[in-house]
Amino acid sequence: MTSIASVHGPDGLRALTLPQTEELAADIRRLLVEEVTRTGGHLGPGLGVVELTLALHRVFESPRDQILWDTGHQTYPHKIITGRAAAFGTLRQPGGLSGYPSRAESAHDLIENSHASTVLSYADGLAKAHRLTGATDRAVVAVIGDGALTGGMAWEALNNLADGADRPVVVVLNDNTRSYAPTVGGIPAHLARLRTEDRSSHSVFENLGLAYVGPVDGHDIAALEEALRHAAGLGRPVVVHCLTEKGRGHAPAEQDEADRFHAVRPRPAARTAPRPAPEPAWTDVFGEELAALGDRHPEVVALTAAMLAPTGLTAFADRFPDRTFDVGIAEQHAVTSAAGLALGGLHPVVAVYATFLNRAFDQMLLDVALHRAPVTFVLDRAGVTGDDGASHNGMWDLTLFQMVPGLRVAAPRDAATLRRALREALAVQDGPTALRFPKGSAGPDIPAVATLDGMDVLRRPGSYARDVLLVSVGAMAGVCLEAADRIAEHGFGVTVVDPRWIAPVPDALVELGLGHALVATVEDGGRSGGAGAAISQALADAGARTPVRTFGLPQRFLDHGRRDDILAAHGLTGRHIARAVVEALAGRDDSVSIGDLAPQPVGADQ
Amino acid sequence: MTSIASVHGPDGLRALTLPQTEELAADIRRLLVEEVTRTGGHLGPGLGVVELTLALHRVFESPRDQILWDTGHQTYPHKIITGRAAAFGTLRQPGGLSGYPSRAESAHDLIENSHASTVLSYADGLAKAHRLTGATDRAVVAVIGDGALTGGMAWEALNNLADGADRPVVVVLNDNTRSYAPTVGGIPAHLARLRTEDRSSHSVFENLGLAYVGPVDGHDIAALEEALRHAAGLGRPVVVHCLTEKGRGHAPAEQDEADRFHAVRPRPAARTAPRPAPEPAWTDVFGEELAALGDRHPEVVALTAAMLAPTGLTAFADRFPDRTFDVGIAEQHAVTSAAGLALGGLHPVVAVYATFLNRAFDQMLLDVALHRAPVTFVLDRAGVTGDDGASHNGMWDLTLFQMVPGLRVAAPRDAATLRRALREALAVQDGPTALRFPKGSAGPDIPAVATLDGMDVLRRPGSYARDVLLVSVGAMAGVCLEAADRIAEHGFGVTVVDPRWIAPVPDALVELGLGHALVATVEDGGRSGGAGAAISQALADAGARTPVRTFGLPQRFLDHGRRDDILAAHGLTGRHIARAVVEALAGRDDSVSIGDLAPQPVGADQ
Repeated sequence: MTSIASVHGPDGLRALTLPQTEELAADIRRLLVEEVTRTGGHLGPGLGVVELTLALHRVFESPRDQILWDTGHQTYPHKIITGRAAAFGTLRQPGGLSGYPSRAESAHDLIENSHASTVLSYADGLAKAHRLTGATDRAVVAVIGDGALTGGMAWEALNNLADGADRPVVVVLNDNTRSYAPTVGGIPAHLARLRTEDRSSHSVFENLGLAYVGPVDGHDIAALEEALRHAAGLGRPVVVHCLTEKGRGHAPAEQDEADRFHAVRPRPAARTAPRPAPEPAWTDVFGEELAALGDRHPEVVALTAAMLAPTGLTAFADRFPDRTFDVGIAEQHAVTSAAGLALGGLHPVVAVYATFLNRAFDQMLLDVALHRAPVTFVLDRAGVTGDDGASHNGMWDLTLFQMVPGLRVAAPRDAATLRRALREALAVQDGPTALRFPKGSAGPDIPAVATLDGMDVLRRPGSYARDVLLVSVGAMAGVCLEAADRIAEHGFGVTVVDPRWIAPVPDALVELGLGHALVATVEDGGRSGGAGAAISQALADAGARTPVRTFGLPQRFLDHGRRDDILAAHGLTGRHIARAVVEALAGRDDSVSIGDLAPQPVGADQ
Repeated sequence: MTSIASVHGPDGLRALTLPQTEELAADIRRLLVEEVTRTGGHLGPGLGVVELTLALHRVFESPRDQILWDTGHQTYPHKIITGRAAAFGTLRQPGGLSGYPSRAESAHDLIENSHASTVLSYADGLAKAHRLTGATDRAVVAVIGDGALTGGMAWEALNNLADGADRPVVVVLNDNTRSYAPTVGGIPAHLARLRTEDRSSHSVFENLGLAYVGPVDGHDIAALEEALRHAAGLGRPVVVHCLTEKGRGHAPAEQDEADRFHAVRPRPAARTAPRPAPEPAWTDVFGEELAALGDRHPEVVALTAAMLAPTGLTAFADRFPDRTFDVGIAEQHAVTSAAGLALGGLHPVVAVYATFLNRAFDQMLLDVALHRAPVTFVLDRAGVTGDDGASHNGMWDLTLFQMVPGLRVAAPRDAATLRRALREALAVQDGPTALRFPKGSAGPDIPAVATLDGMDVLRRPGSYARDVLLVSVGAMAGVCLEAADRIAEHGFGVTVVDPRWIAPVPDALVELGLGHALVATVEDGGRSGGAGAAISQALADAGARTPVRTFGLPQRFLDHGRRDDILAAHGLTGRHIARAVVEALAGRDDSVSIGDLAPQPVGADQ
């Protein structure tokens, strides 16, 4: 009767006895371990909040009361008890359940963004709206981790919540002492004192003007419910300090000090043939090269925003612990403190997932670039990431990068060019640099057949006909070469070039483009203002009439799915690009014939 | 002997007696009032930190010790005592002293960015660098206002500074209880308790792990010096809480409750003829229209990040105080709490200077646009602002806007189209909208001669020749019309269109462009990925061979100067644009002749 299958929504939960609820918690945990180790996904965070989720849904009445989750990857138990248990096997599969809250899935999901530290701001806005619209019977409850409290937005929101004596918000602090890794800085030390010391002194929350309830055992459903009821009854903004254990109830996770099984990969399907050793991941190539360069470059320091291992910095940190700084979930501080480190004579490397650099655009622009500080940004998970959905795709960086005066941007196509770009970036002393590469395997190295003013020519036309220049951005080289083969089958002469450094647009690339009848650019980022748009503009500025086709992602939020499937769905395959190029060439205006163009050496280094 | 003229740098200050130093403070204050009321600039902030600046430069030895200023507009006294008193009459004039710290001006200026809340992050980076490079004799001192503490970055930095027991940073909290207006939220209430109550409880800074010294009278040089020496001697991160008075010593400023003479306009030169009543400022047009619409739109609420009056919200706030939210210097929270308000059924209007929206790009993208929340962003000071220099120009917004899926963007050209765009934006319920306009006067209204699918045609060609389509973005309409007149003198047919809503690119604009031999776009934003680039891409996507010239600002940091001078220096005048267009038309490829084009009605509403 308390089986998960019988849980069609939170209403039924409130009729359960405490022992029945505890039994259900155990069932949820079993389901989580079984399904997530099969499908892949976030495991540790969900295991830590099973009891908390049950208590929240028993004390508050969702969706009338609004339960908001920071970093949506902790919502798997919430999904299970809001009617989505049966679909849980489709988690993160194309067309299946999202790995994050999804308004399309459930009325119990209100916010889909899963960038950390945002939830208190949503809650402040909702509470203000309820006061104005008279919907004061609706409680607003915001669950936020201790790790997310290191992000400045949370502070901005607490400062504002404190002003809201007449608009109560219940802040549930899910304190598991970690984000991926243990939380850094003064905040966790303060929370630790709240846990262990007699509370003769105010908490930071009380200093700001909120009430404080706790600490409470986050795995004791009865204690949680009592604390939440008490907090809700205060009628003013309050922080309920809950102590939880990430990975709780799954021994391998509990014993994993790295990240408590923050996320796990899908289990390989049974009876498949043993796969060849995979190519190294982009992350690992970067991490190993940076560690290797550390000796030769004593001025290099590394920064991460609470993602040391995921961004590949572990090896560097092991060898150079004094030169490695984890600043917490605080991208703004990461970037501006990097500017400070650079002003102090060092060369900081800021390693970050592409999607999260969006949070520090102003700092990259003004604090780093305006000061021409030699900071190197290394963006992992650039382009399409896939499984994590819209808020995790790194499809914005190329446009942002084009905006930043003086920023030099490299998009390596393979492990070899990643290593080379990193070495080149560390040698730049008069301004910032950026490297970007996608999630996954770097694949086999793709050799250049010639070089041209620092650019790599990957393919030369078989004849003297220079019909089309394919400009490959980063990891799209394989797709471009496949497209080139297909275009060549139609008798057209195709050049494929990888500029390697794509911003500012190299003069040699413009020259090369002028020597072709058509230019096509291929990137796995948003098309608006991206690398292709910049190349197109540079050609137009040079007075060229050469038409430019820019292949890239539409400026839309993409559903979750597999990276290759998403690229294919948006025409980023050799076949699609070849067809579009051949059509453009076949229909081309003969007045812009290759015969009009001055001879132009291709593949001769200048 | 203590006259300002004798102050060539901070070294001489340390030999002065206390009475001599106090005398110098009075002289500096007189100079500030005299010069800044003449040149225009920031007055109240500088008046508040005269004694603090002197004490800092007497206790610490700049530039060996590094004194960093948050919000650089408070550095006028610092400029005066670091050898720039004689040049002070050139403040903010073209070629003269910058209104902010400038590394080109002085070795005592280290950081030029003047966006608030950044300084503690720079300081954390510098202190880390000094520890690694062994430069531990260099003190790092960071001056930050209480207003800037409402910005999340400051919290991120405090959390990290707290970890730096071995890298002391002296944080000087310049607590004048205001940014422009009184500081909002829980933080100022806490600081007030620190000022007035017996300190049986820890300060928020001590909770985070920093030492706390104070409060100290920020106009008592001897007390300041004692506190600063004590703090520096602690050898650990410390906050020195200084109480200052914005506008101190200038009675009109002290009595101005609005903003204590935060900034003043230049005094008009004597003996000029009385000027005609100026056209209304863009800010006022917006503010009045929003207040007028407030009755009809009970769902509209307004948000500001500590700039209620500067962004024109005063009238709305007076009429609808419950529907107006000042969140402090916290653009991220402003945007995400607006998303929350929208999820709660309201229509938030976020009023912000264009340069500051850069700080909330991630929030605009994911928290607002991903949720298709009906939030209207109103960007004042878009394009070139001029006097305030690189960090205040609002030349980035059009590119950011193009990146955001589903965002509709209007650039009004005059007061009438601003009012219309605001009405239209408030009617949009299925996603975000943005309006942007520059600093200064809206100028006379510019009537449309026809409309075309919601776009305004400002000029039709005299004949049937459709040689060039000038696309005017926002306030560039006057420049475009002047350019059109000049181009027409050469016998070319010119159409000028103002799309009004520039993103997404209107289909009708693409159609219109296809009907002309050349398209030229004119905007006062950065060219990379801006409105012109988007129009160019849309035309290329439509298979057009029509060449597109995109006139706009180069992707560079611009020196301070007058708006019109800066626009002219970058070719954004009728004369420059006309010449470039005429040259392009004269040299055009005849194969793309107007005769090839299907007849296309211009100026007929569909």
